Amino acid sequence: TTLKGQPLDRAALESMLRRRLFYTPSFEIYGGVSGLYDYGPPGCALQANVIDLWRKHFILEEDMLEVDCTVLTPHDVLKTSGHVDKFADWMCKDPKNGDILRADHFVEDILEQRLKGDKEARGLKVEEKEETDKKKAAKKKKNKGGVEAVKLDDAVVKEYEEILAQIDNYNGEQLGQLITKHDLRNPATGFQPTPPVSFNLMFQTSIGPSSNLAGYLRPETAQGQFLNFAKLLEFNTGQMPFASASIGKSYRNEISPRAGLLRVREFLMAEIEHFVDPEGHKKHARFHEVEDVELAFLDRHTQLSGSTVVKRQTIGQAVKDGVVDNETLGYFLARVLLFLKKIGIDERKIRFRQHMDNEMAHYACDCWDAELHTSAGWVECVGCADRSAYDLSVHAKKTGAPLVVRQRLEEPITIEEWDIVIDKKNFGPFYKKDGKTIENALLATTQEQRGKLVKELEENGKVVIDVPGVNDGKVEVSKDLLAIKWAKRVENVREYTPNVIEPSFGIGRILYSLMEHSFWTRASDGGDEARGVLSFPPAVAPTKCLIVPLSSNKDFTPEVRKLSQKLRSAGVSSRVDDSSASIGKRYSRNDELGTPFGVTIDFQTLKDGTVTLRERDSTRQVRAEEDKIIAAIKALVDGTKTWQDVESELPLFEGQQEVEVTVR
Amino acid sequence: TTLKGQPLDRAALESMLRRRLFYTPSFEIYGGVSGLYDYGPPGCALQANVIDLWRKHFILEEDMLEVDCTVLTPHDVLKTSGHVDKFADWMCKDPKNGDILRADHFVEDILEQRLKGDKEARGLKVEEKEETDKKKAAKKKKNKGGVEAVKLDDAVVKEYEEILAQIDNYNGEQLGQLITKHDLRNPATGFQPTPPVSFNLMFQTSIGPSSNLAGYLRPETAQGQFLNFAKLLEFNTGQMPFASASIGKSYRNEISPRAGLLRVREFLMAEIEHFVDPEGHKKHARFHEVEDVELAFLDRHTQLSGSTVVKRQTIGQAVKDGVVDNETLGYFLARVLLFLKKIGIDERKIRFRQHMDNEMAHYACDCWDAELHTSAGWVECVGCADRSAYDLSVHAKKTGAPLVVRQRLEEPITIEEWDIVIDKKNFGPFYKKDGKTIENALLATTQEQRGKLVKELEENGKVVIDVPGVNDGKVEVSKDLLAIKWAKRVENVREYTPNVIEPSFGIGRILYSLMEHSFWTRASDGGDEARGVLSFPPAVAPTKCLIVPLSSNKDFTPEVRKLSQKLRSAGVSSRVDDSSASIGKRYSRNDELGTPFGVTIDFQTLKDGTVTLRERDSTRQVRAEEDKIIAAIKALVDGTKTWQDVESELPLFEGQQEVEVTVR
Repeated sequence: TTLKGQPLDRAALESMLRRRLFYTPSFEIYGGVSGLYDYGPPGCALQANVIDLWRKHFILEEDMLEVDCTVLTPHDVLKTSGHVDKFADWMCKDPKNGDILRADHFVEDILEQRLKGDKEARGLKVEEKEETDKKKAAKKKKNKGGVEAVKLDDAVVKEYEEILAQIDNYNGEQLGQLITKHDLRNPATGFQPTPPVSFNLMFQTSIGPSSNLAGYLRPETAQGQFLNFAKLLEFNTGQMPFASASIGKSYRNEISPRAGLLRVREFLMAEIEHFVDPEGHKKHARFHEVEDVELAFLDRHTQLSGSTVVKRQTIGQAVKDGVVDNETLGYFLARVLLFLKKIGIDERKIRFRQHMDNEMAHYACDCWDAELHTSAGWVECVGCADRSAYDLSVHAKKTGAPLVVRQRLEEPITIEEWDIVIDKKNFGPFYKKDGKTIENALLATTQEQRGKLVKELEENGKVVIDVPGVNDGKVEVSKDLLAIKWAKRVENVREYTPNVIEPSFGIGRILYSLMEHSFWTRASDGGDEARGVLSFPPAVAPTKCLIVPLSSNKDFTPEVRKLSQKLRSAGVSSRVDDSSASIGKRYSRNDELGTPFGVTIDFQTLKDGTVTLRERDSTRQVRAEEDKIIAAIKALVDGTKTWQDVESELPLFEGQQEVEVTVR
Repeated sequence: TTLKGQPLDRAALESMLRRRLFYTPSFEIYGGVSGLYDYGPPGCALQANVIDLWRKHFILEEDMLEVDCTVLTPHDVLKTSGHVDKFADWMCKDPKNGDILRADHFVEDILEQRLKGDKEARGLKVEEKEETDKKKAAKKKKNKGGVEAVKLDDAVVKEYEEILAQIDNYNGEQLGQLITKHDLRNPATGFQPTPPVSFNLMFQTSIGPSSNLAGYLRPETAQGQFLNFAKLLEFNTGQMPFASASIGKSYRNEISPRAGLLRVREFLMAEIEHFVDPEGHKKHARFHEVEDVELAFLDRHTQLSGSTVVKRQTIGQAVKDGVVDNETLGYFLARVLLFLKKIGIDERKIRFRQHMDNEMAHYACDCWDAELHTSAGWVECVGCADRSAYDLSVHAKKTGAPLVVRQRLEEPITIEEWDIVIDKKNFGPFYKKDGKTIENALLATTQEQRGKLVKELEENGKVVIDVPGVNDGKVEVSKDLLAIKWAKRVENVREYTPNVIEPSFGIGRILYSLMEHSFWTRASDGGDEARGVLSFPPAVAPTKCLIVPLSSNKDFTPEVRKLSQKLRSAGVSSRVDDSSASIGKRYSRNDELGTPFGVTIDFQTLKDGTVTLRERDSTRQVRAEEDKIIAAIKALVDGTKTWQDVESELPLFEGQQEVEVTVR
């Protein structure tokens, strides 16, 4: 729906957004490349303003440490992080025409089509409203007319609905079973696609002239932050907890990108890695500031039961009830909501959905998505994952770097445990280049494992341990090179690997949702359906103020220049439209660009220095001396005044210096 | 040299910059990847501030159209632009150990080493000052001790010097000849490297799941802007001239990156494409605003004569004398200088060097680099190229898209010329999928070519034309499908392809130069050599103000929080340092971070609400009530007041509430 609650015509909106150059398909004169879009001037400015607010809301407000890491990432890093093996989608192929299909989307498409056919057969109205899933909008055309009205058994309908409610929870094998069990066929050919295979989503390249260093374009900004953890901790003078943050491009080689800006191959991310002590249940010092914020939750259990009904409650209550695991995660969920509202996202179209087990990324132990409702259904826009100690641990294990926090203990503690003692003199020379890796693997063993190794060493005179990447993954170490001793030591320092809470923002998806949530047409106010408006809050609007001279009369030029200069000094971005179009048309154009305010310079201005100020949403106008108007605009943009305040302070203007079509 | 003119210890500066996390090698715990660096918090903030000033200085000041295009670029685009064939460096290989060498750097290294050896043999002092070339600093270590003191003939010295003055002007064959002629050998093995071969500098990848769409990471942001030209022109309501601009990452797979931030594989660029009518010698409406700006020029002829002596003159004079080709190019050179000065680059270390013919990128017809002098010599930081109509023409020719401006003529003109007439009905079916390409090739022929084709058609009944990519590049078209007629028509519209002036900024190189130009140590003022200072202008400083409570006494906490909040409201970024280090140490740390101002909260503050304000460069302090100090900081950061103004308005503080080592 539009901002005013009317049905949204997505095609009309997208055509307007492209016409006004918010975004446009990349390389269009070369036929385009799916999943790649460029932002034009208003899209760029909107993005810059949203990023600016993000930086203030998160980074500055909480003294986060911003970093800017490279996109190019060597193979080893992403092998260790698990992305090389696990960052993949399930892909199948049509055996007849070679179509490549994303397996989960394919299953979803076909089942939905059948449910739709069933409804038609039962004589029920197929409401657009039911198009609530994110992947559906793009398919409407394809389906139109293609839906066969076939009635299904009630039990089958129920089964399909349950499958769809947890579609994100199936692995490749299960998707393959669904395809055969329900005989799902590609409508284009009538064939069942091949069993799903895993397709890694990272773009690969090679670094350097000799092509021997494999690398990828990063799929997330997070890894660079993890690798710099020790340096950042030191920069923060060793104090915990703290967060790093990064804003930058990431890349995913989507199997079949669609739905415009919602599923693209290159996108801007803003990610926070909040490092926290896992002891003490991840309390957050500022949780009390947000505990009364109310959110709409859709938890894991509700989804697994086949339902998508949300529950509204305060974050304080949700943490108390255990719906949300801990305060730190809860704090960020609430802060995310506040941010989304601040930039103009419609609160009624926000829900927080918990991931189901199979759906979660390989590094996450819990995850809540902030989903925004659009004409393409609910869209994941912000992921809040608890990555536990996963990433820091695997990188530390692989490299031997101490990605830990050392905390001075108030009282020293005595520890008795198994200690690994390596014969340094002979160990290295014996294993040569693998020595360090094998040593790290030994040192990484748990106390429980060491207990077993002690016995093995006693009984066999050697141990066999797992060392991925060395030989066949198994390495023998004899008792000449290794001892495992029960030792006592006194510790003054507690060493721990922090856990990570990661709010991760897909900026492009947020921007698209924001454009949809801000859109309406003058028809809602009894005006023209063709006249679109984007009601962005002034803080994010690409341009804050339009300056329109009444006509191209040269006498207006110095006034225009002066006003433009004064606005710039006041920190308000403005644009002049001195084209020959009528004032009404020029304002209409800028309603479509989301420009909240407009100043008209007319002949009266030349006489007494007054100008009119128009507000975009109401199209109402006030008139006063230029400096008063500038002060009013500045206050409106800063958010210190509302339009109501301005109307109560400055005289309304209802004159007709212009031939604007009044639509109210 | 440092800001204060002392010899610069580059190793000390780099170690400080890394320690303070301005930047750090990426993936260091994995051993690092050469040519990749991450920016830590101060580097990030410095970068953001420089970008912010850039946006204001260029984009806002001249209403440029900002766009954000994708990095991923399909093969066809870069094939057309010439990058696939020509964006390369010359690489050779050591036949013994397989070392890969960049040919021009190799020749330069060896000749410089020999010249150094000659000087030593002649008993001359080898001055560090002579290390004026950008590629030398990194090699110092390698050369140290490795230089053989061998005297050369005077004629040989002269020859070497002339080669070095135009080292950027040789192609691969010529570099190969230099290697054999002067018997240049790799010091590591004593072997001559193999003849130079071309190595393309673009990172390659493939887009989509079927791996059949080859793509590259863009080597410049420019192509995205060119491809969107028609849309941008329309957005600008058809008005010329106008400029687009883009800030984003670009990628070059350097053969052997070195010299830290100065030669990297992933870097941030800010590029302007200014589109201008080629008729009327590229005048610029605002040229008069900059005509008195004085620049240091090193033109092409001077370099070819073997000299590197610059000539200082105003840009007005330079354009008048023909040193700089036209006003638009001149306007941007001056604006670039003003920008560099604004962010704190030392004007004495800026020169504008014109490219020699062989050195120019394949798309440029003229190019001036703004070079900044650093400890690594003169470094190209901003390139100002005249790309003429090259890019728009090749893309239009390849795709058939009308990348032109249509200008209504005041008076219609009559044109008589050869017209290509294609038999549309049969042409397409005959050539099938190649039809459009062949048609475009025919339509792209010049009048002169058409004159010849007419004859060919008459004589042979067919023509043979070049169509790259179709068959073997030659296509026959018979007179059944094609006629070429002498036709007269009246035109009301003039159609032209704009020329492009492109100022292109390498942000990382500018940032590194800025850090060097801002650096000095307290030794210059009689203090401690180990105490480094980065004297950034307040506008670009990562943090504007440090807040230091005298001690960790809890009573200071509310004051600290209040001050921090007030500064944030005033739009001034601040950081609190409440660590246990002495005040002097905390200020020292922030001198290294380039923080221009510091406020101390002490016991007096709790009594009367006054605080002290310290200025970084002079280390002098004033004391006043908090609100007065905040107003002073705001004015200093905005640039409306200088420190001298503040000292004259507020009482100096020379007390000793702290144990700071006074170094002046």
